Amino acid sequence: MSQLLTAGIYRLTSCPTLLAFASVVGKKEGEGPLGSYFDKINTDTTMGEQTWEKAESRLQKDTVSTVLSKAKLSPPQIDLLLAGDLLNQCIGSSFGLREFGIPFLGMYGACSTMAEALAIASLLADNGLVQNAVAVTSSHFCSAERQFRFPLEYGGQRTPTSQWTVTGSGAVVITASSKDSPPPYVKGICIGQIQDLGIKDINNMGAAMAPAAADTIKRYLTETSTQASDYDMIITGDLGRIGSDLCIELLKRQNIDLSINHADCGKLIFDPKKQDVHAGGSGCGCSASVLTSFFLPLVQSGKLKQILFVATGALMSTTSIQQGESIPAIAHLVHISNTKD
Amino acid sequence: MSQLLTAGIYRLTSCPTLLAFASVVGKKEGEGPLGSYFDKINTDTTMGEQTWEKAESRLQKDTVSTVLSKAKLSPPQIDLLLAGDLLNQCIGSSFGLREFGIPFLGMYGACSTMAEALAIASLLADNGLVQNAVAVTSSHFCSAERQFRFPLEYGGQRTPTSQWTVTGSGAVVITASSKDSPPPYVKGICIGQIQDLGIKDINNMGAAMAPAAADTIKRYLTETSTQASDYDMIITGDLGRIGSDLCIELLKRQNIDLSINHADCGKLIFDPKKQDVHAGGSGCGCSASVLTSFFLPLVQSGKLKQILFVATGALMSTTSIQQGESIPAIAHLVHISNTKD
Repeated sequence: MSQLLTAGIYRLTSCPTLLAFASVVGKKEGEGPLGSYFDKINTDTTMGEQTWEKAESRLQKDTVSTVLSKAKLSPPQIDLLLAGDLLNQCIGSSFGLREFGIPFLGMYGACSTMAEALAIASLLADNGLVQNAVAVTSSHFCSAERQFRFPLEYGGQRTPTSQWTVTGSGAVVITASSKDSPPPYVKGICIGQIQDLGIKDINNMGAAMAPAAADTIKRYLTETSTQASDYDMIITGDLGRIGSDLCIELLKRQNIDLSINHADCGKLIFDPKKQDVHAGGSGCGCSASVLTSFFLPLVQSGKLKQILFVATGALMSTTSIQQGESIPAIAHLVHISNTKD
Repeated sequence: MSQLLTAGIYRLTSCPTLLAFASVVGKKEGEGPLGSYFDKINTDTTMGEQTWEKAESRLQKDTVSTVLSKAKLSPPQIDLLLAGDLLNQCIGSSFGLREFGIPFLGMYGACSTMAEALAIASLLADNGLVQNAVAVTSSHFCSAERQFRFPLEYGGQRTPTSQWTVTGSGAVVITASSKDSPPPYVKGICIGQIQDLGIKDINNMGAAMAPAAADTIKRYLTETSTQASDYDMIITGDLGRIGSDLCIELLKRQNIDLSINHADCGKLIFDPKKQDVHAGGSGCGCSASVLTSFFLPLVQSGKLKQILFVATGALMSTTSIQQGESIPAIAHLVHISNTKD
């Protein structure tokens, strides 16, 4: 049974296991530094569908099918499906997953959604409320550009602080732990609080989200009486180059040193020299695909013992930006470990 | 500790209490048959804000403030805030609630969101994972029309099957039960599965959502070995007149008789003769405001002993409709009771 340390922060005691994980990405992601780690790379970014939105739904469907196959489970063995994406009304998830016939919880945490879904599923699994659950998120560069910025055909220029939405999806099967469950295990959760320091630049999401990541990391370290150096890596979702530097700086002012063991999925997924992505990758699918392809296998094999996965989300819309509003942000944290101790 | 009966269906054993509930609505809702039940009626539907979207955020903020005041709790005493709405990227919630400083979980279930948030909060409270949580949702006629249909200034004609989005918000404080906790109690949960029977008419949401409501009700009755007549009322969220009739008809074919004790929040909130709303009310705020203003006090006082609250959501977007897609729908169920037995 999980222990509630303070509002939103939990120590899990049975430590649910992440039984299987899968990632499906697009062509550009496949050409990046992590290309060899993904389960499936679609060289055709339409995924054979007629619209970008249908392509994104297809990504989620393929990723869930892949993760179920890796876990050797069928849909009737899954108690809950927790999913979300960036599209208006989260249609990437609802259309992608409607055929599975699994009880469905739709989440919205923008790019933090993978951590949110993992957190809720892990809490439920730690307390016998699900045997198996699946958490999945996606994003698609072309559907995101059309919805949040400009149609691709317009050929708009991007600012140096802007990030490139990842075409990709990641899914995890979260399973209630038994005596001989294999790692990785979920040991702790921190649900984020909305932070808004007044950033209004829609092309600088990293700056808007950095305070949320810093706040969540600080709250978790404080409540668990741990130091940043107790973890092999502290991995943010998609702060990118600018947001990562800001997050490190904000925590430095609080005497927390993240400079040594910090990584950011948005910085890892593309090659900054060869791939023209400016401040890095972003999107619900960025943290989800990097976590499931690169980091979870490292925790599984024991090369990484303890990691904090901190996915951040910018909770604005085009409407709120047009109305002159600043960008509220949130970050949820999942503590993943190679051991239950 | 909750008992998982089958995928997505739970019997709660400690039975969390709904400690306080509040509703804030607009002028038209205040003029309807339930006008005297709401906590606050805004005769100015801008709520003093400069845009409809900011007005909707203001609704959520006011409703949460009201419910906290009724519960005699302050934000630091709330472990989790679970919220969602219909606006793109759920900005009604993120902007409305950003100042409370409470750990925040964003939900997206379209108009089923109140039942989804209540369900998750109740599961967490039943298992000691939160002491107090708040579930809140909202909708606003003017922000919904602008986003999903036409700007109000266009003066578009509405079809007879169309529904009128409620300007309103409802919030509930869900509290872990102790020996002397007062009713209403949450006794059971059914998480919905996505249903899509191929309805493509964006102006007939009731028809799209009726199969989801019927499926969820049938699954819950079957798994709990209960009959529809075991409940004083089975309350759907916003099926409206057409969807309600279809839901009753679909269940009749399965030998489940809902004709006697069915009510629909979308049918109750407006007067079909005096208020020009066609098939009835709809929106995240419809089921939330009617549940919190009208039904929960009846369960609290014992006039209703057992109710099933089944909020339905249509999971499409304007983009999916323009691309010729049908409308997937979902319904989540919360069993609320005057006694723990």
